[in-house]
Amino acid sequence: MMSPPAPNLPQPPAGTEGPKYLQMALRMAQLIEQGAFKAGQRLPSVRDLAAQDGVSMSTVVKAFHWLEERGLAQARPKAGYFALDRQRSAAPSTGRKPALSVASLPAASLPAPLAWGRSTRVRENTTGSPWINFSGACPRQNESFDEDRIRVALARSARVHRRDLVNYSDGVGVESLRQAVARRALHMGCRLDAEHIVITASCMQSVSLCLQAVTTPGGMVAIESPTHFGFLDVLDALGLKAIEIPTHPRTGLSLQALQLALDTQPIQAVLAMPTLSNPLGAVMSTRDKRALVQLLAARGVPLIEDAVFNDLMASDEGRKAAKAFDVGGGVMLCGSFSKTLTPGIRLGWVAGGRWHDRVAALKTMHGAATNAILEHAMADLLTQGGYEARMRKLGRDMADRLKQARDLVRSVFPAGTRVTTPKTGYVLWVELPLGTDTDALADQCCPLGIRFCPGSLFSTTSRYRHCLRLSFAGPWGEVERQGLARIGQLVRPLASGGVGGGDGWGHAPH
Amino acid sequence: MMSPPAPNLPQPPAGTEGPKYLQMALRMAQLIEQGAFKAGQRLPSVRDLAAQDGVSMSTVVKAFHWLEERGLAQARPKAGYFALDRQRSAAPSTGRKPALSVASLPAASLPAPLAWGRSTRVRENTTGSPWINFSGACPRQNESFDEDRIRVALARSARVHRRDLVNYSDGVGVESLRQAVARRALHMGCRLDAEHIVITASCMQSVSLCLQAVTTPGGMVAIESPTHFGFLDVLDALGLKAIEIPTHPRTGLSLQALQLALDTQPIQAVLAMPTLSNPLGAVMSTRDKRALVQLLAARGVPLIEDAVFNDLMASDEGRKAAKAFDVGGGVMLCGSFSKTLTPGIRLGWVAGGRWHDRVAALKTMHGAATNAILEHAMADLLTQGGYEARMRKLGRDMADRLKQARDLVRSVFPAGTRVTTPKTGYVLWVELPLGTDTDALADQCCPLGIRFCPGSLFSTTSRYRHCLRLSFAGPWGEVERQGLARIGQLVRPLASGGVGGGDGWGHAPH
Repeated sequence: MMSPPAPNLPQPPAGTEGPKYLQMALRMAQLIEQGAFKAGQRLPSVRDLAAQDGVSMSTVVKAFHWLEERGLAQARPKAGYFALDRQRSAAPSTGRKPALSVASLPAASLPAPLAWGRSTRVRENTTGSPWINFSGACPRQNESFDEDRIRVALARSARVHRRDLVNYSDGVGVESLRQAVARRALHMGCRLDAEHIVITASCMQSVSLCLQAVTTPGGMVAIESPTHFGFLDVLDALGLKAIEIPTHPRTGLSLQALQLALDTQPIQAVLAMPTLSNPLGAVMSTRDKRALVQLLAARGVPLIEDAVFNDLMASDEGRKAAKAFDVGGGVMLCGSFSKTLTPGIRLGWVAGGRWHDRVAALKTMHGAATNAILEHAMADLLTQGGYEARMRKLGRDMADRLKQARDLVRSVFPAGTRVTTPKTGYVLWVELPLGTDTDALADQCCPLGIRFCPGSLFSTTSRYRHCLRLSFAGPWGEVERQGLARIGQLVRPLASGGVGGGDGWGHAPH
Repeated sequence: MMSPPAPNLPQPPAGTEGPKYLQMALRMAQLIEQGAFKAGQRLPSVRDLAAQDGVSMSTVVKAFHWLEERGLAQARPKAGYFALDRQRSAAPSTGRKPALSVASLPAASLPAPLAWGRSTRVRENTTGSPWINFSGACPRQNESFDEDRIRVALARSARVHRRDLVNYSDGVGVESLRQAVARRALHMGCRLDAEHIVITASCMQSVSLCLQAVTTPGGMVAIESPTHFGFLDVLDALGLKAIEIPTHPRTGLSLQALQLALDTQPIQAVLAMPTLSNPLGAVMSTRDKRALVQLLAARGVPLIEDAVFNDLMASDEGRKAAKAFDVGGGVMLCGSFSKTLTPGIRLGWVAGGRWHDRVAALKTMHGAATNAILEHAMADLLTQGGYEARMRKLGRDMADRLKQARDLVRSVFPAGTRVTTPKTGYVLWVELPLGTDTDALADQCCPLGIRFCPGSLFSTTSRYRHCLRLSFAGPWGEVERQGLARIGQLVRPLASGGVGGGDGWGHAPH
């Protein structure tokens, strides 16, 4: 048996074995046993295999573990996995042929890895794993969310609205929830009509429906840069093209750049997070939010506004949505409860402005039904006393945590590192010295059980290859601090030089 | 006050008043008061206004009721609504101007009514109304569904899986439900791998994801004719073209016609319900199901199979899915629990065959998240003892009810009427004498509080203008029998002549 390639190499988590890693392991085993990989030859990298097969890197790592345990492969620190002499194989022969033939080993004919979606890749990194996880910006095992409160609301809903258990629900969502959303939107400066709100399965579904309502296939949509990988995914899914608008880490979308893009490109919509953008955590000024709406209204271009983090801001002024300045119905406001109340219910909403009827129809046409019992429970949770106090505490707690994490990054990452200073939220964006390859860094961290999102996920270009997003939405304790320090140690040899400072960034001081 | 235009004109149901009808009423009131409609002038028809505004006909009728109550309009039996002399207006002046200006009355510039979706139109007809409803094929106030059983399963799920209340759920749905679906699929002759099943919000969402996985915008999809209006909607939403394949009311999709279409058209997928098609209730023979799969496999064209009614069939042989004959993964099987277990939970599933990974990724990319608590509850309900017995009883009860309804149609509809004889299910398809206009019939029935789906909803052509679909998924008692008889009475003067008989049809005997 080989020893693990690095200290603290975790065992594959129990109960998560699935056929994907096994199929991959069997294919590799066959190739090794047939001599297609000679003893001592370097096997394909974790990243390449993950990309080829459209699976997560953890799946590939599990496949390699399987090969290691059977004496077919060996990990060498910082160099990857290597084939072992197949005569040395310690695996008891089962007499059974591996299930797949050599011919099925995927090659160039497979679709591009991103055909399966950046979100899928990140999701596979964030579920079912006990590893140190800085990957998903969705709260996970976060003590801020109160199981009992949610369970009680759900049980009450099922009791009070028992007829909804056996009848189709209304297409746009129950009125009590639409009204609760409208009341909450007052804190974002928006007077929404509950009759013009549609309940959805998530903020991302709201965005998808909005895009479908206002674009045509092949159309162009302006987005922030860097942007949420989910936005790139939904644009891909709809066959839309992204045009990436420079975005400042503190002040957000550059209106000058957007104006230039609008002047020169047939932009059908703008998709943005003016308050606590993802991954930068930028907040546009109230003046800029107003200017953004006016700029787009003058040109008849809809703004699809994702307000999923707004409630984390400390003041109503900070929470203010661009939608607050919408007089002609040109802003489509999207939100959800997953970042603030609980990620477990899976409901979002959209105020589709002028396109409300079309959004509502598209929801039905795609069969994107939502459950009335969950909706009533969510309405209950939103209108309970203490919501405001809980939001303020959550926003404050996360701001504190981000500050701690930022200080740690500054102390353990190499000179030239820059890190954002968002007011609150779940994520930091880290810019490493130019030339650093964070995809390679992710590959190195993966077998250590440490996950984060490399910068390449946040653009259709390679311009953020030296960046990474760290999420602190999950647990935050000594283990996570050590994991963060470990990333910093791994960065040092990769970093080829320092870069200068800039507004809106914190700098690693050494 | 005017008297109602027909006997038994129902009052608008309490508690369902909404601003849509009021906005329309206000616009009409303004036009009448400003003299745009002269006293005695005929107002636009219910159907035209519904189409123009993209609202249900009941919304328009409510607007007319409002005008009647205020002495601004008068209904004349069989002729429509007429403006009254505005000096006679009995409405107390509120001093307030109506909210909308004359200029906002919609005209030709509005999108086509079907841009809002056939499903939306039908849904508006089926929710929140106490009227006699033969409209939606989804069980409604159906005594077959046991509230308590479902509530208990939900409460248990929230207790046992409490961690899921505060954490993101897995993208493809919880394993227990995917396994339960795989076990149920054995009764359809399908060996599905739970790892290759995705849980969705509905069968229609499954169909939408499948279509997105295997087609390109502008592509052509072969469907049954007549077909489920929801299929036409989702094709519209995705910018796909429908090619309608002749379908026999008893034996289903014509394989000869399909073969011809495949030979001559660039068909990207076939979307069909081989077992209990909607609206015909046809069941393809096992031999034809196999032939269908082989025909498509030979050409590499995927079959998207909707199996939402299969469990209502009495025997496993009758339930058999075309997917049972799929050896190459070319069949994508879609289902839900809304027609068999309860329409209140809103969950569906899909076994995407070769395109499973793409379907799973698309679900995530569109943010079409599903709720783990509901999924666990549904898994519980599916695996409880007695499921089989309940399905057989439901299928038998519905077969009995359809027979009663068919006998009634035969006795009260005019000579030349033909009605389908499905083995079970929720709907009958009625072909009236050629020349009958069922859209006009629906307009006549609407103010009587009687709803059904006119044939025009089931095709992109006008070929089913003389047909209608009657659903018996809701309550079935004396009131409904009288409503059905009333439709028959209204048909008689519309029917211009008899038509011949044909296989698979029951005939009105006089």
